[in-house]
Amino acid sequence: MTVNGAAHPSREEQVLARIERARRRRPKVREERITLAHGAGGKATRALVEAVFVDAFRNPALEPLADGAVLDVKGGRVVFTTDSFVVNPLFFPGGNIGDLAVNGTVNDLAVCGARPLHLSAGFILEEGFPVAELRRIAESMAEAAALAGVQVVTGDTKVVQRGKGDGCYVTTSGIGVLEREITLGEPTVRPGDVVIVSGPIGEHGITVMVARGELDIEADLASDTAAVHDLVATLLDAVPVRVMRDATRGGVATVLNEIAQAAGLTVVVDEAAVPVRPVVTGACELLGLDPLYVACEGRFVAVVDGEYADAAVDALRGHTLGEGAAVVGVVEEDPAGLVLLRTAFGGTRIVDMLVGDPLPRIC
Amino acid sequence: MTVNGAAHPSREEQVLARIERARRRRPKVREERITLAHGAGGKATRALVEAVFVDAFRNPALEPLADGAVLDVKGGRVVFTTDSFVVNPLFFPGGNIGDLAVNGTVNDLAVCGARPLHLSAGFILEEGFPVAELRRIAESMAEAAALAGVQVVTGDTKVVQRGKGDGCYVTTSGIGVLEREITLGEPTVRPGDVVIVSGPIGEHGITVMVARGELDIEADLASDTAAVHDLVATLLDAVPVRVMRDATRGGVATVLNEIAQAAGLTVVVDEAAVPVRPVVTGACELLGLDPLYVACEGRFVAVVDGEYADAAVDALRGHTLGEGAAVVGVVEEDPAGLVLLRTAFGGTRIVDMLVGDPLPRIC
Repeated sequence: MTVNGAAHPSREEQVLARIERARRRRPKVREERITLAHGAGGKATRALVEAVFVDAFRNPALEPLADGAVLDVKGGRVVFTTDSFVVNPLFFPGGNIGDLAVNGTVNDLAVCGARPLHLSAGFILEEGFPVAELRRIAESMAEAAALAGVQVVTGDTKVVQRGKGDGCYVTTSGIGVLEREITLGEPTVRPGDVVIVSGPIGEHGITVMVARGELDIEADLASDTAAVHDLVATLLDAVPVRVMRDATRGGVATVLNEIAQAAGLTVVVDEAAVPVRPVVTGACELLGLDPLYVACEGRFVAVVDGEYADAAVDALRGHTLGEGAAVVGVVEEDPAGLVLLRTAFGGTRIVDMLVGDPLPRIC
Repeated sequence: MTVNGAAHPSREEQVLARIERARRRRPKVREERITLAHGAGGKATRALVEAVFVDAFRNPALEPLADGAVLDVKGGRVVFTTDSFVVNPLFFPGGNIGDLAVNGTVNDLAVCGARPLHLSAGFILEEGFPVAELRRIAESMAEAAALAGVQVVTGDTKVVQRGKGDGCYVTTSGIGVLEREITLGEPTVRPGDVVIVSGPIGEHGITVMVARGELDIEADLASDTAAVHDLVATLLDAVPVRVMRDATRGGVATVLNEIAQAAGLTVVVDEAAVPVRPVVTGACELLGLDPLYVACEGRFVAVVDGEYADAAVDALRGHTLGEGAAVVGVVEEDPAGLVLLRTAFGGTRIVDMLVGDPLPRIC
């Protein structure tokens, strides 16, 4: 396995070489026009981001395409992140676009290992939007920010004509600080690691779909939207963590594919171990959806050293937001870059990233 | 002037007392629904921001309502800012929504005295938007970022259905560092200070209006969109600066009102001294607009110690972007909170903040 007498490349070297190959690959977007799938967080989003944005903006902080960018600011490590929110409807059981926008950005910071500190909020309002609804949204943002221990410190408001928006879009950006001497990221993932989800999946996406009222379903559902920074801190205090991602658009399946691809390893998921509430399973069956692709807004995926699997789950389950945490899979060496599902029936199938957009505008 | 034997309050104390009174005032939005004026950057925007957002989010970093928030991050002073861009059309002479979004956020950092470092970009795309146009926008952003010495390090892409957007909206946020031992802000403004604009005003707003093609005007116009961080640094190196604001939505008139109100002083503007290119004056006359209310995207207003007026203008004029810089007014004691215009005909009139929205979606 050595060439010209060179030493066997280390895991880090292999991963860096893979990143370099991906850089040179220059992905393409075949479509001439934007489709809803480009916003779904799955395969099409990834292709668009790589072909258009990464290609234009190339820089080391951006290229890992993590939930946030790790920056060196005044000698300290700072994490910076942004998300636009276009959820429809604006208000749904368990939350609204306001707390969703705060929690989403807090969570992006948290899964990067940062303590969330400051948020910005940019509003794009449609002419005719009720001021009372805007006030409810702002109040929800303030409550969510207070719960997460962050402040909304700067903002902007634009108004577009009727028919050029949809009530209210919110873009939040966030700054957090890395206070722990740890390095998180796919290059640290090793065969033998375990994959954990922090709670039952898919509740946010299904709740929003049902809230639209287009489906003939009535279910006792509420969004899982929540700030997970404290739960993340509990986990980081307890065990060595390799990488975390919050499982929003594209769901757990897409996040696991991103991890498997970036790490160049396989993630093998045990279908029976994935926590899904029966009401979500039921709604997914009616809608023809797989819960693995349905967005959560208060759940994350963590890859943890296999030796610490039980300690990690115990730590998470000791926290209100992590009561349903479970080990759902393991990391293996081959085939590199794939996610495999061991089904309840004993078979194995490949789980791809989300393709298309079965659930548009769920965040 | 003393009460109960207390010492005469200092300027800072007076300004802080005024901020406290404003806090207690709880401004109201009388409209039940959002109008275009709420996004115009003038009086209605101010009322909405104070009544809804400041009321909900209250915190010391937000309340000065400056172009960015000054934060303490890991012991260093960091500036954080955000702006959403909904300009129509997306492409116009001199620029497009992409470089506008980069320059706008760079400029918000710059006028807070910060060195711009990192940007985020959130895209809200309408289904059907041409990928080629998105690519042009991203490339313009990359070029503008390179010119400004910043990097786009993180981003997000959402897609909304046809008829729920208008091609492409961009929200940029930015982080910069304060490297100078200076304190900028309205509380430092003193009677005797001079007001400077960094170049001819109104070119961006008029260019965008004309580019819409709804007006029967053909004019040799281009947006003034540019990153002013280097020009700002030149000024800060040369003279003591009190406060700077970039004169975007609402124009120079609105910015001067914000300064006068927050400082509790009067700004007296000499109409004849305000630099406006003849083509802008001509277009404004046809459109029934006052150039003082028309947005610039590469000009800023600076208040400078009166003793340094000439040095400040000389410093600005020595820079390509500041060739048209001029002293346009002075700061006086009374009447507190007003902007007065000495007209070319020798009269004096009050210049209010922008009311209504004569130029919707110019940024």
